[in-house]
Amino acid sequence: MRLAKAKYPDEKRKLVEDALHRFFPEKDKYPDVIYGAMNHSLFSGGKRFRPVLNLLVAEVFDSDIDKFLPTACAIEYIHTYSLIHDDLPAIDNDDLRRGTPTCHVMFGEDIAILAGDALFAESFYLVASTQNSADSSRIIRVVNELAFAAGVRGMVSGQVVDIQSSRKRVDSETLHFIHSHKTGCLITAAARAGAILAGASSPDLDKVTEFATQLGLAFQITDDILDVVGETDVIGKRIGSDERHKKATFPSIFGLEEAKKKAKVAVDDAIVALGGLEADTKSLIELAKFVYERNY
Amino acid sequence: MRLAKAKYPDEKRKLVEDALHRFFPEKDKYPDVIYGAMNHSLFSGGKRFRPVLNLLVAEVFDSDIDKFLPTACAIEYIHTYSLIHDDLPAIDNDDLRRGTPTCHVMFGEDIAILAGDALFAESFYLVASTQNSADSSRIIRVVNELAFAAGVRGMVSGQVVDIQSSRKRVDSETLHFIHSHKTGCLITAAARAGAILAGASSPDLDKVTEFATQLGLAFQITDDILDVVGETDVIGKRIGSDERHKKATFPSIFGLEEAKKKAKVAVDDAIVALGGLEADTKSLIELAKFVYERNY
Repeated sequence: MRLAKAKYPDEKRKLVEDALHRFFPEKDKYPDVIYGAMNHSLFSGGKRFRPVLNLLVAEVFDSDIDKFLPTACAIEYIHTYSLIHDDLPAIDNDDLRRGTPTCHVMFGEDIAILAGDALFAESFYLVASTQNSADSSRIIRVVNELAFAAGVRGMVSGQVVDIQSSRKRVDSETLHFIHSHKTGCLITAAARAGAILAGASSPDLDKVTEFATQLGLAFQITDDILDVVGETDVIGKRIGSDERHKKATFPSIFGLEEAKKKAKVAVDDAIVALGGLEADTKSLIELAKFVYERNY
Repeated sequence: MRLAKAKYPDEKRKLVEDALHRFFPEKDKYPDVIYGAMNHSLFSGGKRFRPVLNLLVAEVFDSDIDKFLPTACAIEYIHTYSLIHDDLPAIDNDDLRRGTPTCHVMFGEDIAILAGDALFAESFYLVASTQNSADSSRIIRVVNELAFAAGVRGMVSGQVVDIQSSRKRVDSETLHFIHSHKTGCLITAAARAGAILAGASSPDLDKVTEFATQLGLAFQITDDILDVVGETDVIGKRIGSDERHKKATFPSIFGLEEAKKKAKVAVDDAIVALGGLEADTKSLIELAKFVYERNY
């Protein structure tokens, strides 16, 4: 079945972009280099996929989404922090990200480590700030979800296994562990945080979780594919970076065509998971289609 | 006036030590290297000064302190994470800490960066976990306080100015900025978190804040002094490390005797700040005295 060409929710992306500027810590801008480094990495483009997903999910359960913006921005902080640390010479040693030099290339390794740390801290500062007017017990659950996703049971362990697997032949189980932890956990947490803050019921939260898990899988497969077939000026990082790092990817393990099929299955499964929700999930279906269709 | 020799509250330290073991993320121990690295840095000794301070302050307002242990441990996680990142080759490049090889020496730079990240995430996971039975709105305030103290307005900016000031002659204002941010903020946040969780009134919180600010200052001055006059096997890091790194310290700017006087004034001011509290503050006074007297 040929899907109709999907459109990215640019109005949500704009909401996030404006809020990121509004919430960026302006005060006490001393020492300026660290604010500069945080700013450089936070505002170097990007689709704002995770906060947009967060807002779209929240909107399914509560249309007044302005109050969810602090959490949406916090999620982008966590994502940006993880990119800065991943790019470090001691880890992936990448010099280009979103079309601009990476944080450590611009500001040095010491400042890049600290800029990542600062963005990570700022994410929790923002979620727990008075600017977040959501219900207290829901905010605490969200802090717990985000910390879980970013921590040793989530992103960190994905990154560690990725490092360990570099230059090795890995099996599909290991590939799945890497992707579901390194990328999947935060995408799932972004969706869950939206549902939790907006007061979704426990069964609805389960459906959102399944949707986001499959969406995250599709996102990672298409990311791997773009690294093979994309163009540097479109995806904003050097093509073939996975190949250079000898990273395990879906195309390298399954081949390009089979990887595309797996992305399609994941997107279809994501959409099926939404079927049980009573609410209007058009925007989430559109986002899932977009993930499959982007750039190829 | 000669102060009587003060005793460290070892029963609180033991409480913290046991809780750190209890809360350490045991499950899903894959990949084991990251759990090993976190474990190495978290359980390599140390006085547990910040969580002990946190518990002592909480106890002034609420004697049932078991419920504050998740937060106390979270504070030690943050402290440990900051040490791991400070010790990295790109920052202070220290190979010895608390008498054992630093995290990156044992596990490599990549794993050390990620072990720090994991401990930082785990701190918020723990504060916001169901194991924390404190009041919801107080927990959110504590998340906000800890994130503030650890972030760009706190520890991170202190570390950045410290890096910038290395090998330069700095004035006392810069020295004060470095210490109050790099060390002071988390010590103050530890005390404030204890008061907030235990339901201290706003005026009492102000007194605790002033106490902790002066205590933090005294702590840093005596730390600087120990780096000059201490012994490696007592303080667990190489003596003269500040001198080697050309770091600004209280003895280097004011001289040893004047630095000792400043530590004494700060401890006295800390104790004076407690005067306004109705409750029993004996244990806090004892801790302040201990900070002044330790090892010299």
